[in-house]
Amino acid sequence: MSYAQFLSSKLAAAGAVEGCMLTVATGGRTYRGVLMPHHEFSGHDIVILKVKSGYNIGIRVAADAEIKVESQPVEHHRPSEEGTVKPGLKNLVLIGTGGTIASYVDYRTGAVHPALSTADMINAVPEIRDVANLKAQVLFSIFSENMTVPHWQKLAQAVADELNAGADAVIIPHGTDTMSYTAAALSFMLGDVPKPVVLVGSQRSSDRPSSDASSNLMAAARFCVNGNRAGVFVVMHDTSGDDSFAVHCGTRVRKMHTSRRDAFHSINVPPVAHLDRDGKIEFSGPGRATSAAKAVATTGMNQHVVLLQFYPGMDPELFRDVILKSKGVVIAGSGLGHVNENMVPLIREADSRGTVVVITSQCLNGRTNLNVYNTGRDMLAAGAVTVQDMLPETAYVKLMWALANTNSPEAAKEVMRTPLAGEMGDRRLV
Amino acid sequence: MSYAQFLSSKLAAAGAVEGCMLTVATGGRTYRGVLMPHHEFSGHDIVILKVKSGYNIGIRVAADAEIKVESQPVEHHRPSEEGTVKPGLKNLVLIGTGGTIASYVDYRTGAVHPALSTADMINAVPEIRDVANLKAQVLFSIFSENMTVPHWQKLAQAVADELNAGADAVIIPHGTDTMSYTAAALSFMLGDVPKPVVLVGSQRSSDRPSSDASSNLMAAARFCVNGNRAGVFVVMHDTSGDDSFAVHCGTRVRKMHTSRRDAFHSINVPPVAHLDRDGKIEFSGPGRATSAAKAVATTGMNQHVVLLQFYPGMDPELFRDVILKSKGVVIAGSGLGHVNENMVPLIREADSRGTVVVITSQCLNGRTNLNVYNTGRDMLAAGAVTVQDMLPETAYVKLMWALANTNSPEAAKEVMRTPLAGEMGDRRLV
Repeated sequence: MSYAQFLSSKLAAAGAVEGCMLTVATGGRTYRGVLMPHHEFSGHDIVILKVKSGYNIGIRVAADAEIKVESQPVEHHRPSEEGTVKPGLKNLVLIGTGGTIASYVDYRTGAVHPALSTADMINAVPEIRDVANLKAQVLFSIFSENMTVPHWQKLAQAVADELNAGADAVIIPHGTDTMSYTAAALSFMLGDVPKPVVLVGSQRSSDRPSSDASSNLMAAARFCVNGNRAGVFVVMHDTSGDDSFAVHCGTRVRKMHTSRRDAFHSINVPPVAHLDRDGKIEFSGPGRATSAAKAVATTGMNQHVVLLQFYPGMDPELFRDVILKSKGVVIAGSGLGHVNENMVPLIREADSRGTVVVITSQCLNGRTNLNVYNTGRDMLAAGAVTVQDMLPETAYVKLMWALANTNSPEAAKEVMRTPLAGEMGDRRLV
Repeated sequence: MSYAQFLSSKLAAAGAVEGCMLTVATGGRTYRGVLMPHHEFSGHDIVILKVKSGYNIGIRVAADAEIKVESQPVEHHRPSEEGTVKPGLKNLVLIGTGGTIASYVDYRTGAVHPALSTADMINAVPEIRDVANLKAQVLFSIFSENMTVPHWQKLAQAVADELNAGADAVIIPHGTDTMSYTAAALSFMLGDVPKPVVLVGSQRSSDRPSSDASSNLMAAARFCVNGNRAGVFVVMHDTSGDDSFAVHCGTRVRKMHTSRRDAFHSINVPPVAHLDRDGKIEFSGPGRATSAAKAVATTGMNQHVVLLQFYPGMDPELFRDVILKSKGVVIAGSGLGHVNENMVPLIREADSRGTVVVITSQCLNGRTNLNVYNTGRDMLAAGAVTVQDMLPETAYVKLMWALANTNSPEAAKEVMRTPLAGEMGDRRLV
């Protein structure tokens, strides 16, 4: 969708082109900012301005609005898609997957649509080109609730390929809904990845007044360029303001709010690092430095794994098929990891048939321990495996990976008990 | 199990009886406290002392230990089981269910066993008799992971019966694992209950040094006596110290740590009130005052309800039977409440067969909103119901209750959308 006739005329009459500084007086208010590209999903009577705070705002323009150009575009507000390679700057590759960070709101309906081009995203944050050479590819353009295991596999391979082709880091704009699951998957698939691989999302779409897309992307780029830390990370706002960003270990992070900008939290560990608005990085501890090693993607996943939350009244008979048809079952038990004693025979049967049963806690925070109470000891005797303080979602992802990359349930159990990517106890990677 | 021979002899020689003030010098340290009853599950070389902080500690007594009686029991350290009714004090009834708060650790193995008598619990907190007349009954003696829907029904009826028989409040010592599920169940079953009904737990068993059993129980009693607030609540430590207790709305609380004393958090609302260590109550807002109305327990529950967490890779085919065999399904979706679009046809089929599908968020914090993205709108069109900021676990409990107490899926959906016990949006009861 393009601009409405009256609005194109007004913009043309004012001599407005993308990247110019505009004032728009409409509905009794005056807005000032850089004119951003009009997206096909934006309302036809909306202009998008990048205002001084760095936010993009959508303004519904009335027929009697006054539009005035204040200054012409400065060069970097509308760089070419590929940009210019500046020697001395690191090479970042953005691999787009979709999600709110790459989306535009339709101001007529309030609905949000995925954007078509990662270049749009870079163009919305022109200052990112001052810190790194950027290349972008769009691998998927989907909302993250629609990500599946094959998407993770393609993405891990694409990351390894880009790193082995010379990228100093990969940034993955991603929908926030399942970003932590993808981060966990990449963490296990990429193992000792030699460079930073950073997932970044936004809780408000790029062209909304309160969007956190630009600032999160910029913080991710700064961490990649200056952090010298290898691993898979998630970078998001750390507060509801714009002055602090957290870098989370990819296996320890969880979306803990449906809408706040600071929705992502590290669970059971502090964030790997914090960045302030100027990009100053403070690490919470030592980690793995970047290296020149080759990136390897071990993408095998056994998809016959389920994640279940225990609850009072859970009927073992009803879940019998789901559990016995699976090769792996992760249960988020209550408290230290308990289930009702009436579930224990099913755990025993599953284990004896070669299904690996892994116990985590629905409390999310704290460690599981099945040695304290009778029920727990019965669960252990039935074959259940505990995984210290691992998140249920991370355990689910790891179990798929462990089953695909071992030859027996016992070997998979051993992988589950061994810290590989900072996901439990020992924080080897973070 | 009784004391070891050497220990009984030492205690007898010193003239020690339960309730006396003792010093025990053993292993190079000297301990001082009130001698507590020896429990059959405590180690036979252990004495339990209630020390000045209010904690009970278990001391392994060596053969060369020195035991000395400092003073004889004061009367209230060993009250009779039923106590004496003091005019002017309110009448509290404790209904025991089991759990860590009613448990004793076996110091030989570190294992925890449920206690046999709620009177033991009262006797461990003798000062509780200074604020109220107490009566105790043991309804169950189980760990809370083994609580089921029929337990909730019996408990709700027992609470209503005690209130209608003259109790001014009911305190329910309960295992912490599923305490919030029980609190939600009582909230809906007891509706506009005219008095305080307070669940209280402990994260460490009564006779461990760090036990929070006594202090939580005392805080619950003080809230019952001085709060003048009707409803179903959970009272637990608010910090890792001993100086603050939180009173949570029964439908808004969740165990958020496997082991910390301050594991219980109100989600999406502030706690109803805080108590300091002296029992001073600060409410966060207005609520429903106690009244002389009759208590009614509406205990019908449709147990054909399941709680599922959505995750990437969830196979709709695998969960088809679980969902279609159920009368109600609560899904903790990702972010604003989403599932993968491949789940939408199953939601539609379930809805068309009369299964109510309720959507909550696995973020736990924040409100669901299926109007923002395409997937969400498709879920709504398929018949899914959203319930604002209701916790998944509360929605699961409420859906069982709604289905049992209405005549059609549409009527049950309407109940789900209507705030009844502070569980969503409008905070009518808290």
